[in-house]
Amino acid sequence: VNATRSTMLRLGKMVWKLGADDPRKVFHGLKVGIALALVSVFYYARPLYDGVGGAAMWAVMTVVVVFEFTVGGSLYKGVNRAIATFTAGALAIGVHWIASKSGETMEPIVRSTSVFMLASAATFSRFIPTIKIWFDYGITIFILTFSLVAVSGYRVDELLELAEERLSTIAIGVSICFLVSIFVFPVWAGNDLHALITRNMDKLADSLEGCVDAYFMNDETNGKKESSSKKSQAYKCVLNSKASEDSLANLSKWEPAHGRFSFRHPWSKYQRIGAAMRYCAYCIESLNGCINSEIQAPDYMKNHLAFICIKLASNCSKILKESSNSIKSMQQSATIDFFISELHTSVEELHTLLSQLHTDNSPLIESLPLITVASLLIEIAKRVEDIVD
Amino acid sequence: VNATRSTMLRLGKMVWKLGADDPRKVFHGLKVGIALALVSVFYYARPLYDGVGGAAMWAVMTVVVVFEFTVGGSLYKGVNRAIATFTAGALAIGVHWIASKSGETMEPIVRSTSVFMLASAATFSRFIPTIKIWFDYGITIFILTFSLVAVSGYRVDELLELAEERLSTIAIGVSICFLVSIFVFPVWAGNDLHALITRNMDKLADSLEGCVDAYFMNDETNGKKESSSKKSQAYKCVLNSKASEDSLANLSKWEPAHGRFSFRHPWSKYQRIGAAMRYCAYCIESLNGCINSEIQAPDYMKNHLAFICIKLASNCSKILKESSNSIKSMQQSATIDFFISELHTSVEELHTLLSQLHTDNSPLIESLPLITVASLLIEIAKRVEDIVD
Repeated sequence: VNATRSTMLRLGKMVWKLGADDPRKVFHGLKVGIALALVSVFYYARPLYDGVGGAAMWAVMTVVVVFEFTVGGSLYKGVNRAIATFTAGALAIGVHWIASKSGETMEPIVRSTSVFMLASAATFSRFIPTIKIWFDYGITIFILTFSLVAVSGYRVDELLELAEERLSTIAIGVSICFLVSIFVFPVWAGNDLHALITRNMDKLADSLEGCVDAYFMNDETNGKKESSSKKSQAYKCVLNSKASEDSLANLSKWEPAHGRFSFRHPWSKYQRIGAAMRYCAYCIESLNGCINSEIQAPDYMKNHLAFICIKLASNCSKILKESSNSIKSMQQSATIDFFISELHTSVEELHTLLSQLHTDNSPLIESLPLITVASLLIEIAKRVEDIVD
Repeated sequence: VNATRSTMLRLGKMVWKLGADDPRKVFHGLKVGIALALVSVFYYARPLYDGVGGAAMWAVMTVVVVFEFTVGGSLYKGVNRAIATFTAGALAIGVHWIASKSGETMEPIVRSTSVFMLASAATFSRFIPTIKIWFDYGITIFILTFSLVAVSGYRVDELLELAEERLSTIAIGVSICFLVSIFVFPVWAGNDLHALITRNMDKLADSLEGCVDAYFMNDETNGKKESSSKKSQAYKCVLNSKASEDSLANLSKWEPAHGRFSFRHPWSKYQRIGAAMRYCAYCIESLNGCINSEIQAPDYMKNHLAFICIKLASNCSKILKESSNSIKSMQQSATIDFFISELHTSVEELHTLLSQLHTDNSPLIESLPLITVASLLIEIAKRVEDIVD
């Protein structure tokens, strides 16, 4: 009993944390509930019953399947569902007409062959990248509707009526989804993408600075070292954010103008910035590897480069933060060019100091990680500039 | 007209290439067609018509929605659909019984409230990671079935019959899906994952070797340089393969024993190997950055380290290829320990040569990228060992 109770407690805590971290997830649950309750109204209200109530099932289904976390997701699925149902329905009625003219024995053959061919072709077309991005869900619905109408035409005489009924119920379901997802605590994919990119940029800035600080810090200040080495792990989110960036960008393209974003906001630009940030993060990853290497440069060498390396890292991080701010405010930054020229000066200085390091005549092998750190910093500086472009 | 024709030609070529590159995609299309044709048989055959034909729609729907590219995908969706329909149906009948006892005015309120509450809770539970991995699709179906049964119970009197009918048609649809996807040219997610990991490992080996070769090669052998620098880009696939590895690993866990894989094959091990390979690929990315840097070390310096660096890279690549072979054959490799000790020797030699480099008294700044390359190679060697573990 005790074990069960502790499991339940742990589960409860996790669920609570999930909701507290992002209350929008709780709201999403409630929104789905509201949309379904609204649909059931169409089923209970007597006057409506004669119109669409009998097939209200399709409206319920549409709501359950179309309603997504983001507005873009709901719009993508809703539009796909509507277009696919309409085209597949029209096509199926055409096939039905041909089949009904082709005699008793041929009829089932015509129907099955057409289903087989269209389903095969449509399924294969999902592998074409452009179609996959824009119409993946629509193809499923296309096959579904076509098969249902083409096959059931053999039994149901009122085919046109059925098609009309299905279309109107889907229209009701889709509109309820759109209304609830746009007007009740909307979650815009575009906003999320915008926030993800700027957050990742800040993380990159923090971890670059934290990482270099931790490396050059003296051992006495151990407490501070710990905190900045924790901060320096933040770049790891950037490494694996490609999938979520891509899906958010695809969904954003479906969204109407909202807040500061217009309808044709250049969403793919965010993907490019994201890719540039990942390139930078790969380099920080290697930098981290060198910093944690077993061979460590002697302190006097480290001190020789400490000041300029920390300055270089803080320059990079300033540039990243400045451009993240300029993305946040959607305004060209006035100071970024100044920061970049400062970065160039720091790189020059580091070059000079590195040449002086050589004259100390100490064994190269000891300074190996230090030199690599410096050289990676220079590479990172270059990639940071790429992000700004 | 010409423009349209050339677009059609380009599209046709692309589709042909898609099919020729991976004929399994064409087969997948045909398999969906076959499964749908089989289902339509249940609709045409008179004797069956009385049993399940009336609701054959559900069978068609199940096939369209459940049939996935891999066996694991079909099993995941099929099992999810079956379990979710059953539990949601049972729960909905319970709610129906309560609602029908609660009087005329309370009845719709009880129904709508229960739909609202269950839909909200179930939708929210999809954000819990474990549930998302195993039951994401099942939750959709759970909400769908529950809403349909609970809401339509208000009108349809033969609720139990409806539930039974739905279950049996779903059973037919799911079994047809399983049979076709397992016995007609099966595509196993497990096989795919296995092939993806070994292919990526080979690519990593090739690009590491190609990258270092291209850097140290003389300019005279330009043609060869081009070819190996092309090969050296192969690691880029490894950088972004996390998403497909994760989804394949999740689907593999649903698959029964097939070929050389048992039911509880340690699929998550592949994910760990994949992660280790990505760490290695990050380093190769930075290495590539240094190699393409503007500052280049003088030739005599390069020649000093050329032999050992190429040897080190080829050692790493040998280890990667050997362990990829041992994964392919699923046998412990006998020679890998020997290769690893060779790698250690090469790292030692490189250390020695690096210390000698210092005594040449040339400006450090020129040798900066070279030293970084060497030091990154040492780091890569360490990460290659991690992969083997």
